[in-house]
Amino acid sequence: MESKPTLEDIVSLAKRRGFVYQGSEIYGGLAGTWDYGPLGTLLKRNIVSEWLKFFVDSWDDMYQIDSAILMNPKVWQASGHVDTFTDPLVECSNCHNRLRADHILEDAVNLTEEDLKSAKCPVCGKTGTLGEARQFNLMFKTTVGPIEDEKNIAYLRPETAQGMFTNYKNILDTFYPDLPFGVAQVGKAFRNEISPRDFLFRVREFEIMEFEYFLPENLWEAKFEKWRKDMHSWFKHLGLPEDKIKEIEVPEADRAHYSKRTIDFHYDFPSLGFDEVGGLAYRTDFDLKNHQEHSGKDMSYRPKDGSEPFIPHVIEPTFGVDRNFLAVLSSAYSEDEQGGEKRVFLKLPLHLAPVKAAVFPLLKNKPELVSKAKEVHKLLRKQGIGEVMFDDNGNIGKRYRRQDEIGTPHTITIDFQTLEDDTVTIRDRDTTEQERVKTNDLTPKA
Amino acid sequence: MESKPTLEDIVSLAKRRGFVYQGSEIYGGLAGTWDYGPLGTLLKRNIVSEWLKFFVDSWDDMYQIDSAILMNPKVWQASGHVDTFTDPLVECSNCHNRLRADHILEDAVNLTEEDLKSAKCPVCGKTGTLGEARQFNLMFKTTVGPIEDEKNIAYLRPETAQGMFTNYKNILDTFYPDLPFGVAQVGKAFRNEISPRDFLFRVREFEIMEFEYFLPENLWEAKFEKWRKDMHSWFKHLGLPEDKIKEIEVPEADRAHYSKRTIDFHYDFPSLGFDEVGGLAYRTDFDLKNHQEHSGKDMSYRPKDGSEPFIPHVIEPTFGVDRNFLAVLSSAYSEDEQGGEKRVFLKLPLHLAPVKAAVFPLLKNKPELVSKAKEVHKLLRKQGIGEVMFDDNGNIGKRYRRQDEIGTPHTITIDFQTLEDDTVTIRDRDTTEQERVKTNDLTPKA
Repeated sequence: MESKPTLEDIVSLAKRRGFVYQGSEIYGGLAGTWDYGPLGTLLKRNIVSEWLKFFVDSWDDMYQIDSAILMNPKVWQASGHVDTFTDPLVECSNCHNRLRADHILEDAVNLTEEDLKSAKCPVCGKTGTLGEARQFNLMFKTTVGPIEDEKNIAYLRPETAQGMFTNYKNILDTFYPDLPFGVAQVGKAFRNEISPRDFLFRVREFEIMEFEYFLPENLWEAKFEKWRKDMHSWFKHLGLPEDKIKEIEVPEADRAHYSKRTIDFHYDFPSLGFDEVGGLAYRTDFDLKNHQEHSGKDMSYRPKDGSEPFIPHVIEPTFGVDRNFLAVLSSAYSEDEQGGEKRVFLKLPLHLAPVKAAVFPLLKNKPELVSKAKEVHKLLRKQGIGEVMFDDNGNIGKRYRRQDEIGTPHTITIDFQTLEDDTVTIRDRDTTEQERVKTNDLTPKA
Repeated sequence: MESKPTLEDIVSLAKRRGFVYQGSEIYGGLAGTWDYGPLGTLLKRNIVSEWLKFFVDSWDDMYQIDSAILMNPKVWQASGHVDTFTDPLVECSNCHNRLRADHILEDAVNLTEEDLKSAKCPVCGKTGTLGEARQFNLMFKTTVGPIEDEKNIAYLRPETAQGMFTNYKNILDTFYPDLPFGVAQVGKAFRNEISPRDFLFRVREFEIMEFEYFLPENLWEAKFEKWRKDMHSWFKHLGLPEDKIKEIEVPEADRAHYSKRTIDFHYDFPSLGFDEVGGLAYRTDFDLKNHQEHSGKDMSYRPKDGSEPFIPHVIEPTFGVDRNFLAVLSSAYSEDEQGGEKRVFLKLPLHLAPVKAAVFPLLKNKPELVSKAKEVHKLLRKQGIGEVMFDDNGNIGKRYRRQDEIGTPHTITIDFQTLEDDTVTIRDRDTTEQERVKTNDLTPKA
């Protein structure tokens, strides 16, 4: 049975089971922020550590860094963000709400002043009250040090990429890498979205996993193709089904100013439809050239064979951690019927499941069952297979439901037969079928 | 031979070998920010993952969360940070520099106006030019959304703890834990220090690992003692020598307003001497009570046996990731003499070393050595022991030096004898002694 959850289903499960809570919830929230609960933190940790294994740790030509969120403001002048990282904003003269101009008329690709004048304010419903659109910069501003003036303005980084560009020279000077090589980073970034919405999809604080791959210009096409394939494999590694991933060639008019070719990876999100979950951009030598110009530092690479120095070009594969997380949760979300009742379960791949196994004593008030279950729990924990949960709370059916909803692949129950022949039942999350096995067979063979 | 490095030695090694670079270095930096380079990122990852194993992952009563850096500003009113998270600031009327009043007179514990009037400005050297001290709030301010007014001010969190307090109810409602239980988090925090200094020690952007341990009031003394011992064990687990760790009982006058007992853990940092690397605070029910009052949400815990609900008390073990990192780097820093030359090496414990082993072909221009070395490198990588480096760059002595300086416990060299009898040399970082072993013996026995 195919299940087609809505975004509301996902939000509700995420909250109910401790994956994601609203940020600052007890104070009514803060729009565009979310807190990862215990299960969400484990799932996110698994996604990030799989990503590092997939793209960084197993390769000799990848350097991971962890650069500061607060950077010298000149970085954002060089990158073009101070001048061009904006969304068009209009204010309604009736209700005084400020809105994203390009969201008022859904279909309007090129919005004219005339369109706006004749449009209806989506908040108060009045027509002819929308003012002129002005450009609103999406970087969060703050002041560094005790003097609040223009000179001391800093921004919360709106992307992690500039940390790699500003450290490119450091990597060259410390590690003398051959080209091509990559500089990777996983970290927070911030965008002051005018209207955050759609759960983890459009938020003001988010996490990025990405790398900048430095190479000679003549290699860009071949490597672009290599990373395109690898990105596709990554999304399959997350368990996303083939027919829910689309590659979109971004036409020139829609590309970022620095990009000569961009492919966006779209996932078919519940309620939202296909939208961005990652991107691959050929940034040319735009960033390093600009940093050379603005900083006065030589950004060229000196080939070891003594040939002419040059500024490398860059290919950038980017992944939104939160959007990858949302895609994983959405694609895992499943429903079926068990004994005439609807069942919700998360079909998470084993390598992503936050809890790998759960151990239950059949009854909570039978000390011999509880102590045997604790023994088995301890045994499994020691194997280092990841999180193993112990649960003796409520009837066995309820406990199965709980583990199903958090995507635990296997639940192991200790019952009275266990005390006789040292066998336990293992239940499969997806089929709900149970098998009796020897307790010894739960541990890897010697 | 005992080595006593200066902070300058540590900073210099950190930069030279790619552990830590100045933030935004190509633009002259941004005071109080640092970027972790590839080796530093690996070392930091190891510290954080060891911490999670030590305090969180192996325990049933620990819940890890990952809450947003931007929080509803009411959080910081409830916590007291808006009113009291300040440092005294004075301005010099001659040079117009703004300085921390309590740093102008090193010994001044209670600074009077008279003291300040008669003091010399430490920047321009003039006397009698310092104005009155005013309180400067250390939280970075920003504006959320498109309207820049008082109502939309938000702060970059100055600590991670409030994320645990604001999610305490979510944890109760999702997981029904018994008391005591802990809520843990590893994440960034920000403080607008008036004068950041001393490398990673006093910075404006930093990372915290900590947990809030919720418990009934009558358990606080026993659990405080338990966590005190565990914190001590943690610092030993980091390889810090016993005589460089001190526990300081913080007297009432110096304790934070919410704390009834605090023990600071001090490490004997190079150049700085003993200073804080972690802390243990008994926060009573101060935070939950305040959040209950400000949010109107019931923060009490309902015991499962039906007895009277109550607001739990809290014990908080905190660790500064960057200061733990600096302590590890400092305590590992060693010097000796090898063949009449000074040698610098990092005596890092195996579980923290960013690179576990390095493989060298004796000569770069002998294809048979290089290919055999690559084979051994690949073999070791597959074992999942952590990062294994391949290096054929420069003479063998230089390569040993490089690995010594980044703390690689073992270096394996492939030489001509390897091609004859399939043995390699393994060199020990600390003793520099070499041993010949069969290549097969490098892999774990079947």
